[in-house]
Amino acid sequence: MYSSRFLELLIEELVRLPSVGQKSAQRLALHLMRVPQEEALRLADAIRAAREKVGFCSVCGLFSEEDPCLIDRDPQRDPLLVCVVEQPADVLAFERTGSFRGRYHVLGGALSPLSGIQPEDLRIRELIERLRTEPIQEIILATNPNVAGEATALYLSRLLVPLGVKVTRIARGVPMGSDLEYSDQVTLARALEGRREFE
Amino acid sequence: MYSSRFLELLIEELVRLPSVGQKSAQRLALHLMRVPQEEALRLADAIRAAREKVGFCSVCGLFSEEDPCLIDRDPQRDPLLVCVVEQPADVLAFERTGSFRGRYHVLGGALSPLSGIQPEDLRIRELIERLRTEPIQEIILATNPNVAGEATALYLSRLLVPLGVKVTRIARGVPMGSDLEYSDQVTLARALEGRREFE
Repeated sequence: MYSSRFLELLIEELVRLPSVGQKSAQRLALHLMRVPQEEALRLADAIRAAREKVGFCSVCGLFSEEDPCLIDRDPQRDPLLVCVVEQPADVLAFERTGSFRGRYHVLGGALSPLSGIQPEDLRIRELIERLRTEPIQEIILATNPNVAGEATALYLSRLLVPLGVKVTRIARGVPMGSDLEYSDQVTLARALEGRREFE
Repeated sequence: MYSSRFLELLIEELVRLPSVGQKSAQRLALHLMRVPQEEALRLADAIRAAREKVGFCSVCGLFSEEDPCLIDRDPQRDPLLVCVVEQPADVLAFERTGSFRGRYHVLGGALSPLSGIQPEDLRIRELIERLRTEPIQEIILATNPNVAGEATALYLSRLLVPLGVKVTRIARGVPMGSDLEYSDQVTLARALEGRREFE
């Protein structure tokens, strides 16, 4: 039982967040009650602003309150190189590496006949349109290394190669820092297949 | 780099939450962008309401938008029994057990001469006032089983026992489900000292 109905409501909402259980929700709620009021309200306002002001970039499909988005408007980003991903979260993962200076294209998912996701459900038409209007030289297919992602990459490569653009796939192999002994067979087979000569 | 300034601000605020790192903050932010808008706004409103409408119960010191709080107004809660704790989070821990039907008193901390926390910084005067106005028969001292909490319990017992109320201390011993082999010496000594006869 809670001493305050509003505190209880806050905990109920926090518990809906991914990987937040009852105990974490209570801890988060008590934290929000303890910090200076303006800090708690800044979070409330940030959530509201993100949902009320942010839409999608019509070019790459990322979240943006402006169109094109900050990445597509950045003159430092290489317009010749486009990395195709399934979801916005994948873009954040690439941005964390700090080693990609091109631009992105978010498909919004991967082909999956079983789940009824067809090519027309993904932002493929938009990608082909970009090839017509932008000076793109290489498209990196960075869909997930699973069945749906591989199928999507294959489908896109067959569609894009005839259009005269260089199409590449991110390397699949043994992850850095891992132990070969515990690598699964598919990964290991891929790592062999994708081996590179020392130069 | 983020495609949206508002998304970036949201992540910046989420990262201030306890045990939320950069990656979790991104995951939480993307979750909030994905759920139905009203769900995200409900969380924003819950945070705002909790901070703008909730104060403290003048009786027990817990968070409450009403005075007395929901627990103190609940006729089902035993008015003869008061559990004294350091913080509101401790109350939530006791409530989770579902095995305490009395009421609470939040001190707001524990005595700590080194941190400059004196008796007058805690809600001790309010506790003595409650003894005068409420039919309290037993006070359970449930401060933390550490140096400051033990010192606070001892201080309170010396203050309260002369007032003619029964004063008890929660049992300290080996935690349920633990392994004696790995118990620390102080805990084990306490467990021996607090042993009970089978009846």
